[in-house]
This record gives sequence, structure tokens and C-alpha cells, in this order.
Amino acid sequence: MIRISIDAMGGDHGPDVVIPALMTVATRRPDAHFIIYGQENLVRPILDKHPRLAENSELVHCDVAVGMDEKPSQALRHGRWKSSMWKAIEAVKSDAADVCISAGNTGALMAMSKFCLRTMASIDRPAIAAIWPTLRGESVVLDVGAGIGADAHQLVDFAILGTGMARAVFGIERPSVGLLNVGVEEVKGQEEVKEAGQMLREANLASLDYRGFVEGNDIGKGAVDVVVTEGFSGNIALKTAEGTARQFAAYLREAIGRSLLSRLGYILAKGAFDRLREKLDVGRSNGGVFLGLNGIVVKSHGGADSDGFAAAVDLGYDMVRNRLLDRIEADLDLFHARNPKAAGARRSDVETDEEG
Amino acid sequence: MIRISIDAMGGDHGPDVVIPALMTVATRRPDAHFIIYGQENLVRPILDKHPRLAENSELVHCDVAVGMDEKPSQALRHGRWKSSMWKAIEAVKSDAADVCISAGNTGALMAMSKFCLRTMASIDRPAIAAIWPTLRGESVVLDVGAGIGADAHQLVDFAILGTGMARAVFGIERPSVGLLNVGVEEVKGQEEVKEAGQMLREANLASLDYRGFVEGNDIGKGAVDVVVTEGFSGNIALKTAEGTARQFAAYLREAIGRSLLSRLGYILAKGAFDRLREKLDVGRSNGGVFLGLNGIVVKSHGGADSDGFAAAVDLGYDMVRNRLLDRIEADLDLFHARNPKAAGARRSDVETDEEG
Repeated sequence: MIRISIDAMGGDHGPDVVIPALMTVATRRPDAHFIIYGQENLVRPILDKHPRLAENSELVHCDVAVGMDEKPSQALRHGRWKSSMWKAIEAVKSDAADVCISAGNTGALMAMSKFCLRTMASIDRPAIAAIWPTLRGESVVLDVGAGIGADAHQLVDFAILGTGMARAVFGIERPSVGLLNVGVEEVKGQEEVKEAGQMLREANLASLDYRGFVEGNDIGKGAVDVVVTEGFSGNIALKTAEGTARQFAAYLREAIGRSLLSRLGYILAKGAFDRLREKLDVGRSNGGVFLGLNGIVVKSHGGADSDGFAAAVDLGYDMVRNRLLDRIEADLDLFHARNPKAAGARRSDVETDEEG
Repeated sequence: MIRISIDAMGGDHGPDVVIPALMTVATRRPDAHFIIYGQENLVRPILDKHPRLAENSELVHCDVAVGMDEKPSQALRHGRWKSSMWKAIEAVKSDAADVCISAGNTGALMAMSKFCLRTMASIDRPAIAAIWPTLRGESVVLDVGAGIGADAHQLVDFAILGTGMARAVFGIERPSVGLLNVGVEEVKGQEEVKEAGQMLREANLASLDYRGFVEGNDIGKGAVDVVVTEGFSGNIALKTAEGTARQFAAYLREAIGRSLLSRLGYILAKGAFDRLREKLDVGRSNGGVFLGLNGIVVKSHGGADSDGFAAAVDLGYDMVRNRLLDRIEADLDLFHARNPKAAGARRSDVETDEEG
């Protein structure tokens, strides 16, 4: 049985999207058990419409819901110990659940996750990993916004965390890893990135295949399975790609809408366009995974529809079934056993962006 | 008359692309005069095929051409004083030309441009500005890779440089400006970005309309006319957008190629798709402009075809006709007259990435 804790109050649509999504997952995954945290008067009526889901789940009432616009500090002040978001995370900590899913606001979810679960012993900063659709399939890209800036050691940690995720989600035994940079030559780029590259090359880890630097255009090509960067650049890359995909979709609509002939052509090619739209549907693939904490938290897109939220739940399910945390812990232990100096050289003034 | 110096040896195709491009521009712009630097035995035969261009241009023989793979330091060592790239830049310095265009390698072109033209008196670091196609038209985005990192003063300089370019190229009297960040709230992001935001808000410049922070997905929307960022994030954003556009084009080809019905649809809608492809053609719009130097240098895409190179020449022509440098100098003078402390507070350890 895989036990999944759910914050039913997160996202733009709350339980109206969350509960139907769980129904979808429950049908596909008979061994999934849900602990749903939310306001009973809002959740119960929807849950009662899905008797099969009701059988495989329990509902825990929470008075407080964290708002989508609350700052992390506000959310912590008024939502700690009692909000549906906190309770869902806490279920992972107390081992009542194996993974937590929320579509709530990213900053609050990260702040609460760090406060409740704490970072893993050898990690000093968590990362948010995104699954990025590429021409070759999918890649893991991290950090896409947990922090700002990262030193070489933290970038190496991200490489190990992302590798664990690629192994658990894609089933690749030794994922290829690239460091995001402004050129592929070894002399180029930020000092931290160059140093991390040297460390990864020298470490020669069995768990990952370090391929050197990659550039922004290599992400969409699927040049490597895991793309590692610090949170500022990673967030800008992710949002720029989303913006470009939307822009492309708008151009396509405009190009097709312009004449009767092209509209006719569109109708004939509709099946092909539906597949295209599916590939570009950011809501569907957009689940950010918090890595580096003592427990797995999956952040679903706030604007996700029921299919989108279900995809985030599926992702959480897969990571538990494939023992993501165990794999990451083993990889980290192996790395730090071989590189004992790494832990001591870390910087302590970790910037956490708690106010963001 | 607008005098344009041309490095005929740059780019993947050299004079085979450059000379036909100049012919195109010469037809459109009868007052353009070209000074072409390159190997006479390669350039002359192509020039002789275009007698109208030959009338409006002079060819200066240069023995040395800078290779596309040469590092900036190598290029400076063997190409300074004598290569076609150097000579074309030097023509701007000696006031034989108003603007220089090259499709040569970016690192070498920037290193030579800095060495030959030097940065403007009140600027300590140049920027590369890209023209980014958006849903509302086009925006200027800078820095897309001249340097790595920028302090708050340098970001403010970039805002003034980019504004001057938006005024000269788009004809907007008071362009809107945004700082690229990971959120739009004032408390978010890198310290340098927050500080630059405060400086721009307080300066309340007549030449630009500061709109606060923008995120990666705002670039493609055309949320502001000028997007300001440091070179690492800017380069990653630009290349990620290029990669996503290529990815989208590949999906489209794949979606359309799959069935007879959708191919028929494509043929009917072909006019619409041709317009779409034109909008997404990075080669056509991709001209980076070096700003902050005592002279304008336009870098055309290395892989550009004749239309792409012609677009870069057109861009250079427009900037000269609209007195870009005068505008920038006036804006900088105005800003520094009002903010006399700014110059003293700059950091001197400018990272130039000369080796990249």
C-alpha cells in the first residue's frame, strides 16, 4: 500500500479539482491510500459523490487553509500546526504517509516543508525539481526556484538529488547529468559552476554519468537526463520556456484562424494538433518535486485541472514505489564517504528566501 | 549617407552569405555605403556579380580572418590590428564608419570591440542586447551574455542602454522597463536586482518607465519594452527560448507528418504555417547589439542566411539613423548628473569573461 497525504485546499480550485483527481488515481492505482486534509464542509460533499475513493481514503478536518497569495512567513505564522498544508506535510514526518501532494503556493509549501521535515543530514539546501518535456522524452531540471544562488558543493548535491529522481521516475540506471552554463567550454561561466564541474568529474560517481556543461537550448533537446543549476537561473529558464510555449501556441492559433482555407486545413489535421497541444500542456506535466528533505513533497501547479493534479499524485506514487528517498540517501552516503572534506567546506550562510 | 563597416569573413558561410545580404540592403537603402573587410580573392568574385553593390562599397583586403572556434584571447593575439574583424571595428573608432556588422564569433568580437572601442566613460561593463519577438511585437533583452553577474549600478546602466536602443529601434518615446527576477514581489530575488529596482524607482527617469520585476514568462508576453538582467541568466533565458521554439517546431512537424489526412490539412493551411515559421525564425531576428561601447557593433548570428545577415545590417542602419549613441549618452549624462554618487560606488573588479 502506498499512503499519500493530500492538501485538499491548495490551488486555484481547491477540493473541486483535487477530489476528482484522486478518483482518477484511485481507479488506476488500487493500492493507493489517501489521507485528505481540508475543510470538511467543503470536501465531504465532493467525496460523497465518489464512493470508491471514499473507501480508500480518510478525511481529516482542518479549520485553516493557506491562501495562494500568503507570504511564506505569514503562512507559517497562521498555518503552522493546524492548516491542511501543514497537516499533510506532517503526515509524512510522522510516517502516517509516504508522500505529500499540494497545489498550494510554492513559497509557503517550501517554508513549511523545510520547517517540518528538515533537510537531509548531508544536505544544506533543498531544491525544487521539475520534469521538463524534451525531444527525447523527459528530463529532470533542478533547482527551479527553492533558493537563489548555490555554491559548488550545493550544485553537486543537486546533481545527486536529481539523479536519484531520474532513476526513480524514468527508471534509468545511470542518468546523464549536465551543469547549466553559458557555454560548453570548461573555461566558461560562473566560478561555482566550473568548480562543481571539476568536483563531479573527479568524483566519477557510479550513480551518474557527468557529461559537462550544457546550454539553455540543450534542455529542450534532452541532451542529458538531469540538468543542474541554481534556483535563480533555473526559475528563469523554466518560466521562459513556459512563456515561449504559450507564445508558440498563440502564433499557431493566429496563423490558423486567419483564413477559411487554413481553418479547413486545421479541421483535417485536428488529431495531430490535439496531440501537439497535449505535449505542450504545461499544466499536465507541471509537478515540482521538493528534494533534499527528510520526506517527499510534490507541488502541483496552482492552476492545474483535475488531470494535472492527478499527474502530480501519480508522480508522487511512482517515486515512493521506486524508493526515491532510499536511493538518494545511499548515493549521498557513497559520495560523502569518498569525499569526506566536502561537508566541512560548505558555507553556512545559506540564503533561504523565506520571505519570498 | 550611412557608412557601414562589414566583416565579410565572419559566420559559418563568410562572403557567400554576407555579400548577397549587402546587395539586398543596398537595394532597400540607397544612402547606405559599405566598407567591406575580407580576403580579396574570396570577396571580389562575389562582389563583381553585384555591380550595384560594388558602386556603393569599397573592399579593403585583409590577410587574416578570425575563426569561429577561436577563443577571445587567441583571436586578439593573432587577429588584432590586421584581421577583417578588427579592421571593421576599427573603422568605427576612426570614424570611417558609423556602425560595424560581423557574424564572427561572439567572444572574439566582444573582446576586440572592448579593446578597440573601449567602454563609454560612465559605463564599466558592456552588454549584449537581443531583440526578442513577443506577442505584442518585439522587446529588447539585455545582457544576454557579455558578462557574468552584474551589480545594481551595472543593472541600472543596462536599463539606460536598453532604453536608448528601444527608442532608436522601435521609436517608443518612453519605453517600459522591467528587471528579470524570480517573482514580482519587491522582497523577492537577488540582492543586486532588488537594489537596482530601488535605484530605478527613486531615479524616476524621464527617459524610461520603470515597471518593477518581471518573470521569465513575461518576456514572450511583451510585458515590457526592455527586460534587464545580468549576462548569465540572460544568456540562459535566450537559449532556453530558442530551444523551446525549435522543440515546438519539431513537435509540429511530427504532428503533421503522421497521417495522410493531417498532411492534406497542412497543405491547405500552408500559407498560415509559412507565416508561423517566419515568426519563429531565430536566424531572421537574431542580431545581438553590443551596447556601452564608444561605437555600435552588431553581431549577426553565425549560422544566419543572407536574409538573416541583411536583417542585422538593417538593424545597424536604423540605430545610426535614429542616433542611438547620442541618445544613450544624453540619458547617461542626465542620470549621472542627478545621481552623482553612483559612479563612485561602482565596483572595480569587473569580470570580463575574456577567456570565454
